[in-house]
Amino acid sequence: MVVILIRYKITFIYDGTNFNGFQRQPGQRTVEGVLTQKVNVMAKHPTPPIVVYGSGRTDSGVHALAQVAHFDFPFDLPTTAIYRGLNSMLPLDMEVTKVEKVSDHFHARYDVSGKKYLYRLALGEFQNPFKRNYTGHWKYPIDMQKVNHALKDLVGEHDFSSFVASGSTAHTNVRVIYSATANYDPAANEVSIEFYGNGFLYNMVRIMVGVVVEIGSGIRPENDIPRLFQVKDRNQARLTMPAAGLYLEKVYYENEDPDHPTKLPPKP
Amino acid sequence: MVVILIRYKITFIYDGTNFNGFQRQPGQRTVEGVLTQKVNVMAKHPTPPIVVYGSGRTDSGVHALAQVAHFDFPFDLPTTAIYRGLNSMLPLDMEVTKVEKVSDHFHARYDVSGKKYLYRLALGEFQNPFKRNYTGHWKYPIDMQKVNHALKDLVGEHDFSSFVASGSTAHTNVRVIYSATANYDPAANEVSIEFYGNGFLYNMVRIMVGVVVEIGSGIRPENDIPRLFQVKDRNQARLTMPAAGLYLEKVYYENEDPDHPTKLPPKP
Repeated sequence: MVVILIRYKITFIYDGTNFNGFQRQPGQRTVEGVLTQKVNVMAKHPTPPIVVYGSGRTDSGVHALAQVAHFDFPFDLPTTAIYRGLNSMLPLDMEVTKVEKVSDHFHARYDVSGKKYLYRLALGEFQNPFKRNYTGHWKYPIDMQKVNHALKDLVGEHDFSSFVASGSTAHTNVRVIYSATANYDPAANEVSIEFYGNGFLYNMVRIMVGVVVEIGSGIRPENDIPRLFQVKDRNQARLTMPAAGLYLEKVYYENEDPDHPTKLPPKP
Repeated sequence: MVVILIRYKITFIYDGTNFNGFQRQPGQRTVEGVLTQKVNVMAKHPTPPIVVYGSGRTDSGVHALAQVAHFDFPFDLPTTAIYRGLNSMLPLDMEVTKVEKVSDHFHARYDVSGKKYLYRLALGEFQNPFKRNYTGHWKYPIDMQKVNHALKDLVGEHDFSSFVASGSTAHTNVRVIYSATANYDPAANEVSIEFYGNGFLYNMVRIMVGVVVEIGSGIRPENDIPRLFQVKDRNQARLTMPAAGLYLEKVYYENEDPDHPTKLPPKP
């Protein structure tokens, strides 16, 4: 029997609050676990089961505005059928926003050329109840000029060893940040910080935001980031900002952004 | 021993998602229950315990942008001390926004002259995961002209017997709606409906929104509301829209709004 497998690329949103992170784990409610289960139900439980490949992990409580995954499906369905079928089965904290048929050469994880993350930080003495799962919280005044200065220091190719949590399995801590920008919304009393880079280490964004806001509030000297790059010591970057404020905003694939087509450097 | 009791009026926000409604009930996490417990901790557990009087109940899952309550406190503390003290003890899904000292004649429940409710309704085929606890969802197209027509029919003094859930203990179903307005936000693809009235029956807003959107989508005739007032039959207004979309937006007290100083009619 010949089975034709069709490769689908899906883009999807999730509210990370009630997921134990992305990666499938027995007995845990994870994004990959829920998605894999529904894809296999839709395909009537083929043997071997369909494997869903995500662009990368997100931690417990981290959200996604446009996560990407691919899988090989044993039926040639129109993309709208996959879209409607999955969305009618998925729980309310996940939603597929786009389905594409792609070539067998496309790989949601290995072809990533860059990612964009957003961090939302609510200011004020006490946190608004409606924001508790969707923003970090910072009660000290922030000087946006200092924030922008710090962000500028993060841009470029650097060794981010001071900005990676223990437990990282990356073979190199060198990454390139293409841009890092901040915006203050007075109506919401929120600072949003956006990072675009070729890849991010374990907890890297949340640690960078911690350093940036400490600089913004004068708790840390304004020129501390070049020093942190040099010392390569995670203990000098103390804070890991809460997962609730972090959003995977966009995943870029090779040649999607002509300015930044690079992939991660190959393994040595 | 003479104990001087100071009456405080507090205004507070809550995310209703994880509360089993407002009213204190043994073994349940309720807004009144949590608040009463913290107020008594702050006052060092006086005997008899302090009672917290809310402006009225909200159901399980219903939110408040400005709920009001009062209590008599055995210490004459500055309002900022009550504000900071309560907020540092309250769980993250509640936040006190304002504390005032008021006369012993003020009563958070009996002096209410009106309330404003907001209902947020997300449109689109599938609901956005980030909105699932904060909006109702409606997948059919809505004609805003029909919505506005229906809302106009609701304004005024009417017998809302067709719009009250069984279980209501009100002695009359006559209420006055001062205004009912709708707004469509194309960026969010959401309809917001705001009701201002002298009082609302059990589930009344959620039932009214159900009728209004059915009219807006052509499921129900455009002039159905006068008929519903006449028949006084709850079974003819089928839908009760989800609690998640409903927000208590403002509580008015006597003489706060010179245009609408009325209280509910007294018991016969």
